[in-house]
Amino acid sequence: MNRRSVKVFAPATVANLGSGFDVLGIALETPGDYVLAHRQPQPGLSFSVRSNNSDLPSNVNENVAAHVAQLMLNEFKPSFGIRMTLQKKMPIGSGLGSSAASSVASVVAVNALLVRPLKKKELLRFAVEGERKASGSPHADNVAPSLLGGACLVRSYEPLDVISIPVKNTLVWVVVHPHVVVRTEEARDLLPKAVSLQTAIRQWGNISGLTVGLASGNIELIGKCLEDAIAEPVRGNLIPGFRDVKQAALDAGAFGCSISGSGPSMFAVTSSSTTAKRIGAAMVKTFLRVANVKCDVFVSRTNMEGARIVRMQRG
Amino acid sequence: MNRRSVKVFAPATVANLGSGFDVLGIALETPGDYVLAHRQPQPGLSFSVRSNNSDLPSNVNENVAAHVAQLMLNEFKPSFGIRMTLQKKMPIGSGLGSSAASSVASVVAVNALLVRPLKKKELLRFAVEGERKASGSPHADNVAPSLLGGACLVRSYEPLDVISIPVKNTLVWVVVHPHVVVRTEEARDLLPKAVSLQTAIRQWGNISGLTVGLASGNIELIGKCLEDAIAEPVRGNLIPGFRDVKQAALDAGAFGCSISGSGPSMFAVTSSSTTAKRIGAAMVKTFLRVANVKCDVFVSRTNMEGARIVRMQRG
Repeated sequence: MNRRSVKVFAPATVANLGSGFDVLGIALETPGDYVLAHRQPQPGLSFSVRSNNSDLPSNVNENVAAHVAQLMLNEFKPSFGIRMTLQKKMPIGSGLGSSAASSVASVVAVNALLVRPLKKKELLRFAVEGERKASGSPHADNVAPSLLGGACLVRSYEPLDVISIPVKNTLVWVVVHPHVVVRTEEARDLLPKAVSLQTAIRQWGNISGLTVGLASGNIELIGKCLEDAIAEPVRGNLIPGFRDVKQAALDAGAFGCSISGSGPSMFAVTSSSTTAKRIGAAMVKTFLRVANVKCDVFVSRTNMEGARIVRMQRG
Repeated sequence: MNRRSVKVFAPATVANLGSGFDVLGIALETPGDYVLAHRQPQPGLSFSVRSNNSDLPSNVNENVAAHVAQLMLNEFKPSFGIRMTLQKKMPIGSGLGSSAASSVASVVAVNALLVRPLKKKELLRFAVEGERKASGSPHADNVAPSLLGGACLVRSYEPLDVISIPVKNTLVWVVVHPHVVVRTEEARDLLPKAVSLQTAIRQWGNISGLTVGLASGNIELIGKCLEDAIAEPVRGNLIPGFRDVKQAALDAGAFGCSISGSGPSMFAVTSSSTTAKRIGAAMVKTFLRVANVKCDVFVSRTNMEGARIVRMQRG
């Protein structure tokens, strides 16, 4: 009996994970986006959005979730059509992989309705097309962890090669989303075109240590190896109060703290929920005091599973 | 009862492990150097070398093994003196960490004779002084794995921070030492002062993948992640026949192949001793055919233990 309808959750992600700039991302348990998809007799895709954000495109040609769903329908040509609703729960432009979560929820939902569903990893190539639509570039460092869970390393783009890094599930992530706008293009333009060999070597020492730390659950090692010599020094300037907020996180017990994605969200990491709440409160308080900026806070373990079906009906 | 004499073995090492340029090294089971050390009543150090190589300094002021032993005696001021013999078994200037093996064997031997021996990792700071003596720079990427075994990541020099990467002991390394001279300074001068951000990102994707591969014993992953975009493209030119020999190794079943240290030795990695021998033979044959160069071959698993006491007498 095939599936008639599904509801899928795809999580937010922290990409550009410190020294893992441009290659390493992790999945959070919260926040995330939901996609509901129902088989319908007439072919093609009908699409709608439920969101409090009026900036979000809701027509089938513009929204990333609709775009990737349409690509899958074009390729697999099922005998049925799909009626899809994106429940947009995530903040947009936050640096938490909002477009990635929408794309991933969509491809997992469409896949679940297919007669012969693909393996999760095979869905990656569709999900990255959502990123291409959103930003012009098929980045995988948010979609990969949102889809697969845990920590994902994007080793290469040509060909696309994503490696799951084994993560000990002992970490607690604090993510703070300040209500300011950082344009991804501006954040990208700030990056250096070249780096000194010395800096590059330092960065790859750190990312290798970070990888060991994630796999072994060594929080001290993770903390010190999050040090990012490439993006943080320039992008920190785009986030009002960045340095004070980072210091507040460290003072409150964070082992490391940096920018999530291209910002403005910031993440910190620790080993207990109690400390995590204290860190979140300290970061929020500092954003308000130093920059008069309000924030949302999310405290979450690593999402080990990635996108998942939360409800389905067969028929 | 204290130790009266010891014999210590310290192994050769492959540093600059592909994408782990300047930060990652592994220890081999063979070759290596031996140090014999005996307590003697008169204070101070008496030192001699047994070696077939007349280039090797044998006086106490010039040899790295004597230098690091003297540093330890200066610091710990034991009530006894030490008579030390370095049995130099390793080729010099081979890119296999010859000076590192001598320094490490020496510090482990001296330590074993002390009334209150230090932990192995605490000996690192003495061993790097041997490297400073040999090359002007206190490199740790050979001494760390020679001392500690397995794979070692030199995360930072100031302060010195060495991280042991857990390695699955399923790998077989083939190391081929061609009888040509590559000057370390020349190899270093060839390196770029800066690298494009794109290249740096590719390298840290690879080293992170290499770290995962070493920890999980995933030989395919290790093989592809050994790709080095920094040193190999320029240093390969210093080794006659490099590209043909590398291709021969891959054709014979190696999962990856690159330069050991700053050369001229080359290493390849595979998962069985039989294949390793075939790879070694193919590399030797190719060096001879293409460049008319003779070689030594070493086939070895990862040395998980590092330097070790092979014999001791108490009294």
